[in-house]
Amino acid sequence: MKKPLILVTNDDGITAPGIRSLVEVAKKFGEVVVVAPDSPQSGMGHAVTLTKPLRLHKTDIFEGVDSYECSGTPVDCVKIAVDKVLHRKPDLCLSGVNHGSNSSINIIYSGTMSAAVEAALEGIPSIGFSLCDFSYEADFSVAQYAAEQIVKQVLHYGLANNTLLNVNVPKVSKEELKGIRICRQAMAKWEEEFDERQDPHGRHYFWLTGKFVNNDKGEDTDEWALANNFISVVPVQYDLTAHHGINYINQNWDL
Amino acid sequence: MKKPLILVTNDDGITAPGIRSLVEVAKKFGEVVVVAPDSPQSGMGHAVTLTKPLRLHKTDIFEGVDSYECSGTPVDCVKIAVDKVLHRKPDLCLSGVNHGSNSSINIIYSGTMSAAVEAALEGIPSIGFSLCDFSYEADFSVAQYAAEQIVKQVLHYGLANNTLLNVNVPKVSKEELKGIRICRQAMAKWEEEFDERQDPHGRHYFWLTGKFVNNDKGEDTDEWALANNFISVVPVQYDLTAHHGINYINQNWDL
Repeated sequence: MKKPLILVTNDDGITAPGIRSLVEVAKKFGEVVVVAPDSPQSGMGHAVTLTKPLRLHKTDIFEGVDSYECSGTPVDCVKIAVDKVLHRKPDLCLSGVNHGSNSSINIIYSGTMSAAVEAALEGIPSIGFSLCDFSYEADFSVAQYAAEQIVKQVLHYGLANNTLLNVNVPKVSKEELKGIRICRQAMAKWEEEFDERQDPHGRHYFWLTGKFVNNDKGEDTDEWALANNFISVVPVQYDLTAHHGINYINQNWDL
Repeated sequence: MKKPLILVTNDDGITAPGIRSLVEVAKKFGEVVVVAPDSPQSGMGHAVTLTKPLRLHKTDIFEGVDSYECSGTPVDCVKIAVDKVLHRKPDLCLSGVNHGSNSSINIIYSGTMSAAVEAALEGIPSIGFSLCDFSYEADFSVAQYAAEQIVKQVLHYGLANNTLLNVNVPKVSKEELKGIRICRQAMAKWEEEFDERQDPHGRHYFWLTGKFVNNDKGEDTDEWALANNFISVVPVQYDLTAHHGINYINQNWDL
C-alpha cells in the first residue's frame, strides 16, 4: 500500500515547537509536507488574504521533510499547499499542535482549527490538535501520544462525511492522563474586556482581553473532558444552517 | 415602549455605501450606533486582533447617528462596541450591507457574517445582509427593502435560540424580485486557483483566486433562491459539533 501524503500546518508559525512535535508523529504514518505561516497567526479564524499577494518559500527546518513558509493565514496555507505545492489533495491534513486550548467556542477564532476546517471542506480528512498550555517550552509528549492514537484511527476507520476533528490535550503528564473522550463542543463564550491605555502621544488604544465563561455543565462536553484529565475529541461540521431556526421562522413569522 | 438600540457594522469599511444603506433602514426602527472597520476587511472571517492594540475614533459621517471607526476586524468591532461604546448589549446587531454575496460556504470567510455571528454568540439578536453585486455603485434599494421586512419580523417575532440570520439579496430590480425564501446553506465550495506572477525583482508571488462550485441542487438552498430571484434567509448556528460524527466514531473506532 502506498504511504499516505500528509499535509501539516498550524497557526503559531512554522518555527513553533508545536508543529515540530506534530511533524514527528506524522512521519510515522506517511510522506509529510509542511506548508505553514511564516509568522504567528493566532486568532485569525477563517481569514483569507484577498487584498495582497502571497509569498511562498521553501525552508529546510524539518529534517527529511519538504517544508514551505507562506506569508498568508492558516487557511491560505492549506489552499496554496493543495494548488501550488502538492498539486493534488493530500490524504490527510494535520493542523497544530497549537500552543493553547481550542476547545469549545475557541474553535471559531482559531487559525489552527480554521486550517483544518478548510481542508475538510475541500474533501481532505483533517484533524486539528491543541495543547492546553500556551508556553513556548510546553511538553508536547502527551499531545504526540494523542496524535498518534487518533491519526491511526482516522487512517484506519475514517470519519463521518463532511466532518473533521478538534482534538484538545490537557496539560497533564502521561500518568495523570485518564484517556480519550469523544465529546460535543461546550456552549461557553468569552466575555470581552478591553484594556484601555494611552500611548506616549496621549492617544487612547485598546488591548483585547477577556474572561472565558462556561455555563454548560454537561459531562459530554470538551470542557468537562479536559477538566477531568481526558483528551477531548470533538467531531466538527461546517454546515452552519440552524435547521431548528428554519422551523421557528416558518411557525412564527408573518412574511 | 423604549426604542431598541441597534448596532450597525460591516466588513467593507465605514465609508462603504452598503453600510450607509443599512443605517438608513436601522434608523426607522431604533437608536442607531455604528462601530465599523476603518479599512476594508473582506475575507477576514472570524479573526480577532491579539498581537496589536486597537484604535477607536468617533466620526461624523452619518447624520444624526453616533459612529466610530475601529482599526480592527469586524469581530473586534462588535466586541469593542459592546464593551467600550455602548457599555451594554444592544437589542439588535445588523451587519452589512455587504458588497457581494455571502451565500453558501462564503459565510465562513466573510467578515460581515462573522461580525453577526460574534454578536449572536454574545446573546444579541443579529442579522447579516449581503447584496450579490460587488460594485461600489451598486443599487441597494432592494437590499433596503429586504432589511426593512426582515428587521420588522425579527423585532416582532424573534429568532430561535442561539441562531442568527444570513440574508442575501439577488442583483435584481424590485419588479423582478420574487419574494423572500427561508433556506438552508447550499453545500457548495471554492476550488482555489492561485495566479502566479513575478515581481520586478524576479521573485514569485501569488494571488488567491478561485471558482465557486455548487453541486448541491436542492431547491431549499440559498443558491437556488438567489438564482431564482428570491431573497435568501438562512438561519445560522455556531455550535460546530457534528453530532452524527460522534455516533460514527462510537460505532466504528477501536480506541
